[in-house]
Amino acid sequence: MRDLTEQNTTEAVLAAWSDNPDPRFKQIVDAMISHLHVFVREVQLTEEEWAAAIEYLHKCADISTPERSEFILTSDVLGVSSLVDTINNRRPEGATENSVLGPFFVAEAGDLGPVPELEVGGDLIGDRNRGGDPTHVHGVVRRRDGTPIEGAELNFWQNGPDGLYDMQEPDRGYNLRCRMFTGADGRFAFTTTKPLPYTIPLDGPAAAMMQYAKRNVWRPAHLHVRIEAPGYERLTTEIFNEGDEYLDNDAVFGVKNSLVLDWRVNESREDAEGLGLAAPFREINYDIVLEPAAEAAEAAE
Amino acid sequence: MRDLTEQNTTEAVLAAWSDNPDPRFKQIVDAMISHLHVFVREVQLTEEEWAAAIEYLHKCADISTPERSEFILTSDVLGVSSLVDTINNRRPEGATENSVLGPFFVAEAGDLGPVPELEVGGDLIGDRNRGGDPTHVHGVVRRRDGTPIEGAELNFWQNGPDGLYDMQEPDRGYNLRCRMFTGADGRFAFTTTKPLPYTIPLDGPAAAMMQYAKRNVWRPAHLHVRIEAPGYERLTTEIFNEGDEYLDNDAVFGVKNSLVLDWRVNESREDAEGLGLAAPFREINYDIVLEPAAEAAEAAE
Repeated sequence: MRDLTEQNTTEAVLAAWSDNPDPRFKQIVDAMISHLHVFVREVQLTEEEWAAAIEYLHKCADISTPERSEFILTSDVLGVSSLVDTINNRRPEGATENSVLGPFFVAEAGDLGPVPELEVGGDLIGDRNRGGDPTHVHGVVRRRDGTPIEGAELNFWQNGPDGLYDMQEPDRGYNLRCRMFTGADGRFAFTTTKPLPYTIPLDGPAAAMMQYAKRNVWRPAHLHVRIEAPGYERLTTEIFNEGDEYLDNDAVFGVKNSLVLDWRVNESREDAEGLGLAAPFREINYDIVLEPAAEAAEAAE
Repeated sequence: MRDLTEQNTTEAVLAAWSDNPDPRFKQIVDAMISHLHVFVREVQLTEEEWAAAIEYLHKCADISTPERSEFILTSDVLGVSSLVDTINNRRPEGATENSVLGPFFVAEAGDLGPVPELEVGGDLIGDRNRGGDPTHVHGVVRRRDGTPIEGAELNFWQNGPDGLYDMQEPDRGYNLRCRMFTGADGRFAFTTTKPLPYTIPLDGPAAAMMQYAKRNVWRPAHLHVRIEAPGYERLTTEIFNEGDEYLDNDAVFGVKNSLVLDWRVNESREDAEGLGLAAPFREINYDIVLEPAAEAAEAAE
């Protein structure tokens, strides 16, 4: 192909990529090329605008770290992550709904080792998170029919009383983040501090783009949780807080009504003492309902 | 917006971004969101594929340097750069055609200072590029009516006898790269080595994607040149070599017939001696024809 024109470029580029032996990868590459080209033609992208897009990607590169992905954040704020999440997690009524992963999930942060395990009933507040709103989070990981799920691994992560995730703090040590495993009763429980609404990180190009466009950069408060259990579909979700002012304008499009809970105030001194807290404290009692994995479901038929 | 579905997500995301006060930026962001979403829905992108796309971007980030952009290379190999180039450089018959910038243009490489200036008639071969095919490149920067253009700045860059650009060499010093300014006669001239076909960098994710897809990673040999002159449109182009085996399968879609020249063999000992070369040597005599800048053209009407 020589002398490509605005009209024949897409056809020529698709032809050049046509030997792809992997049909699924070919489908994705072809669709990506086609949509990129339609976009460029539709807006008649100038060279300066193209250069600004390249610069945006380099700015994402420069500010990303192993614990923070500005590319994921960009996908989040453009609603792409939410859409991918929705397409891939169609669950029946009664199963807990999915939500976006966000940019702060960490399995193992470099030199810090794996995220620490917390016993069922343990405490995440410690000395570091005084000044927050103490909360007891508990429930059961179960099937829709009520059967508890043993051996589920839960990963929880959230921000602290200053609105920041541990990975945004200067000292970067793990905080308000844990792994927990269910026993035969499927139960999970821990004390923590109520998460706060926060802005997406404001020092990167995603926030700069949003602020230039007068787009809200706040997220409603939420507790992230990812649950994996052998034989069940992995669930990545968030638990929101009724009455939060950003529920209807979430910067990353993650809110689902079924995930908005009442973090109710418990004034019982007896309950508080049993948890090592002072009354009043907040409490959410929320079961996480998993679906059998597709393969498992098929094998069971 | 809560409870986004596959059907209503795009509408909700566009609504969230609707306060954008910059109409042109709004047009671009809206089109980008719409096409990204259509793409995701069309191929029913899985979470693993989304994660692979994010990983691709981080791999680009990891291998890019101030002198090498894997994001530009990705734009190049998907035909996006070529399309942007075509849309923005519609020139009349007789004006030199544009081509892609590529990932190796450098204005000033960090600690190396600005790209060195070469006198008209100077030499780029030096001691470092023996073993190549010595070539005399010369011509005039002019208007379509033949008027020479004084004060044009030309930037030339190309690969060497080993097929690599200076920025790909371990020592990274400038090589086969210069700036040159035209005098009243518009003339440019220098001796260099004939560029070679080469692969795009094979150590990055763009080449990995292409090789997996069985896409050609070679480019035909070319000399890059960018010309800026006050009152004229900036021209970025490449000069190719008739008979090159990759002219019809360029990895980055840059070839235009008007830019394919005969690098003819000159056997004159007298000509060679005048240039400090041995006969035979190669020669291209090629005028670069600029168009007045749009603003300049309008002002002249």
